[in-house]
Amino acid sequence: MSVTAAKGFTAAGIAAGIKQNGNPDLALVVNDGPRRAAAGVFTSNRVKAAPVLWSEQVLKSGRLSAVILNSGGANACTGPKGFQDTHATAEKVAEVLGLGAGEVAVASTGLIGVLLPMDKLLPGVETAAGQLSEHGGEKAAIAIKTTDTVHKTSVVSKDGWTVGGMAKGAGMLAPGLATMLVVLTTDADLDSETLDKALRAATKVTFDRVDSDGCMSTNDTVLLLASGASEVAPGYEEFAAAVRTVCDDLGQQLIRDAEGASKDIKIEVVNAASEDDAVEVGRSIARNNLLKCAIHGEDPNWGRVLSAIGTTGAVFEADRLNVAINGVWVCKNGGVGEDREKVDMRYREVHIVADLAAGSETATIWTNDLTADYVHENSAYSS
Amino acid sequence: MSVTAAKGFTAAGIAAGIKQNGNPDLALVVNDGPRRAAAGVFTSNRVKAAPVLWSEQVLKSGRLSAVILNSGGANACTGPKGFQDTHATAEKVAEVLGLGAGEVAVASTGLIGVLLPMDKLLPGVETAAGQLSEHGGEKAAIAIKTTDTVHKTSVVSKDGWTVGGMAKGAGMLAPGLATMLVVLTTDADLDSETLDKALRAATKVTFDRVDSDGCMSTNDTVLLLASGASEVAPGYEEFAAAVRTVCDDLGQQLIRDAEGASKDIKIEVVNAASEDDAVEVGRSIARNNLLKCAIHGEDPNWGRVLSAIGTTGAVFEADRLNVAINGVWVCKNGGVGEDREKVDMRYREVHIVADLAAGSETATIWTNDLTADYVHENSAYSS
Repeated sequence: MSVTAAKGFTAAGIAAGIKQNGNPDLALVVNDGPRRAAAGVFTSNRVKAAPVLWSEQVLKSGRLSAVILNSGGANACTGPKGFQDTHATAEKVAEVLGLGAGEVAVASTGLIGVLLPMDKLLPGVETAAGQLSEHGGEKAAIAIKTTDTVHKTSVVSKDGWTVGGMAKGAGMLAPGLATMLVVLTTDADLDSETLDKALRAATKVTFDRVDSDGCMSTNDTVLLLASGASEVAPGYEEFAAAVRTVCDDLGQQLIRDAEGASKDIKIEVVNAASEDDAVEVGRSIARNNLLKCAIHGEDPNWGRVLSAIGTTGAVFEADRLNVAINGVWVCKNGGVGEDREKVDMRYREVHIVADLAAGSETATIWTNDLTADYVHENSAYSS
Repeated sequence: MSVTAAKGFTAAGIAAGIKQNGNPDLALVVNDGPRRAAAGVFTSNRVKAAPVLWSEQVLKSGRLSAVILNSGGANACTGPKGFQDTHATAEKVAEVLGLGAGEVAVASTGLIGVLLPMDKLLPGVETAAGQLSEHGGEKAAIAIKTTDTVHKTSVVSKDGWTVGGMAKGAGMLAPGLATMLVVLTTDADLDSETLDKALRAATKVTFDRVDSDGCMSTNDTVLLLASGASEVAPGYEEFAAAVRTVCDDLGQQLIRDAEGASKDIKIEVVNAASEDDAVEVGRSIARNNLLKCAIHGEDPNWGRVLSAIGTTGAVFEADRLNVAINGVWVCKNGGVGEDREKVDMRYREVHIVADLAAGSETATIWTNDLTADYVHENSAYSS
């Protein structure tokens, strides 16, 4: 059901011809109100794609009526012409739907450094608008795929209101954010400040902690649109929890579909002096290529976990560190612990616990193993 | 000629049985004086191997008479017993050579988290001492190899004095330092303060800028020993230049022998506002797995260079960045530049220039591509 699970939204996904292989590549999501509140979170990469610059700008009003998303081209590092193209795309959506361009967010994904084929994209906007439907959520989710093998959607329904969403992303997955486009919709009757607060709180502990390959994108965009069509105004905590659940679910789907990965690695840092310490240590472990190779080889190589922890500034004493892999404490007090032969690594999910023995804070970071398939996919696909 | 090129040094390399495959695994380097000045630089990883903790301690005197190095085991994350083993090794060298243990540095490399077979190592010390020779430099260099396919040595000779050295390291290559053991020797007649200054200046712009896989070791050790046997005291600048040349040469040999690599990538950051900015940007590019895969695929994917630059805090404007790959300015002013089809990437060395257009400082970082062979080697070899 994706972005059309919540009342007050229509969507479409079509093949506009942006992708040379003819696959769907253009998605349109429209908020029919009565409310049109919105919030957004964008990449922290300082090299930002044109659509990110545009959407950050229009989001300042706290109001969005539509989002147009294309795969098949990132429109990043494309200079003034790229920004003009984004602007023209928003203008086209506005014209077709009878809106102002300032109510239209734009998101793009694909190859960096190539201009979009506007002669295909602009007519595609008209086609997509003609196919807008309350059942269009799946098609929209399919149209934003790049190297994704499956489309990703998630829905949480509560008493009379719903949060739903779609996501894409399979490579360049790293915090701040993963390389991904996410559109969340809700029919809850809430203002943009509440949406913004709930969205930032959710992304901080979900998408920002998905670190598949350490590579930060130029195009990451997460949008949350509220229609108010349910006429229900849930309490903040309840709403924020629903947004977090949907973000967490979509984040997990991104990890499970990461390019070339054969393992999903949950890195749980416990007993840290601060949450920041826990996140720093988790990221350092998640980005250690040698460890990621070892996990790929089903080798519970805890020495590589310790050497990753040692590169951080977190509070810890080397001789008090403990590490468990799939429930076996293979490292105790910074040295050899239980027999590593006891670790069963046959399954896709691998669970690493790093105990810093320095406090009571915790954080969980998700990553993937490093595989020959990852190398093949990313040395062949110019993305 | 390695560590015995300079006068006043003897060395040996033997197979003590630490490695199960019977390859050479124990090296001994002895400074016969008359001077026994020394300096050292060690890993900045906070999880330090026992031999690093020991050698940092003994180096405080600025004096070393011998260095014992083993491959086949890192003696890292081995707790109090590991430190006792390092101490016992130094004591054994001291006993055999008639020295104090506080004049003996110890270095180890290999698998983390496993105790060394002291029943093999201690008798090996006696054997090695019996084979000490002014021609033993090559054998010592061979005995410290782990996954290295070749041994690495370098020598610079000046007017009456010499700096020579040996290095090992093929994986876990990252700054602060690369995973490596390096012993440099000189017969110049200089004190330990001068050695320390020259060594730190040299490693900062050589080994610290070799970043093959972003993984920092627990065991990195670089030692510089001076015998004074030449009876020549060169000026500081001349001496520092010789040390830098040897370090640079050995660093290049490490990159060329990096595990599984098929490309050596020279990342030259120019027109930075500060040297720190240049180094930060160079490292960020060097650690971008997607770019490293693209280079492996001979794909001049400059978008991945820009997205790596964008994650840094360096001074730059996104629309003023320029990137050249093998002499072709594929990115100009943050957008599409010369035709990427012009880039010839058939050769092993790849040269990336990142122009930040923000100042006049520069730095060069070396890295390798990311290959399926790297994954295979590091998912199979528990190191």
